[in-house]
Amino acid sequence: MKRLNLYEANDFAEKTFKKLLVHDSPYFKIINFNFRAGQELPVHSHDIDGQVSLVVLEGEGEFLGQDNQSLPARAGDVLISEIAEPHGVRAKTDLRLLVTIAPPI
Amino acid sequence: MKRLNLYEANDFAEKTFKKLLVHDSPYFKIINFNFRAGQELPVHSHDIDGQVSLVVLEGEGEFLGQDNQSLPARAGDVLISEIAEPHGVRAKTDLRLLVTIAPPI
Repeated sequence: MKRLNLYEANDFAEKTFKKLLVHDSPYFKIINFNFRAGQELPVHSHDIDGQVSLVVLEGEGEFLGQDNQSLPARAGDVLISEIAEPHGVRAKTDLRLLVTIAPPI
Repeated sequence: MKRLNLYEANDFAEKTFKKLLVHDSPYFKIINFNFRAGQELPVHSHDIDGQVSLVVLEGEGEFLGQDNQSLPARAGDVLISEIAEPHGVRAKTDLRLLVTIAPPI
């Protein structure tokens, strides 16, 4: 078993979001992104099979999708997206996000 | 994209933990477990390949492992375990946990 606390292991940066690789294995990749208010992970996609989950641990913002789609992103929100489907995140307050990609890319 | 808020979608139960299947696909299975203080997911394992992540969204407790192993479990904690490795959770306060299993079982 391997344990890590996201609040201790990662903080914020002023220039752009702060990224921490939490775990990488043949099964899944887990990444923590911390956003200052106003920062964003721009809408992107990869043309491969697989899915990604985005979990908001803290803060408020919006999930972004194709054609300027926007969905609220608040603590406790889980978004599931195909890796091949455009997805992104924009923070309105400081926001902590946990992303799990399976299979890992 | 599919979005769900765990605080809205799942609550607690007095008899035992309350389980919500958040997502199931060929890539991963995502389950939310809510524990009242004192409730637990007993130590268990499955003799198959794959890994599981346990993320504490809220509350305090302990991660359980083989031979009475115990690690603190607090908001922001991520535990990674082989599916084949004994793992469990015990809540000291009301606790919200998000579990991701890849590949799904």
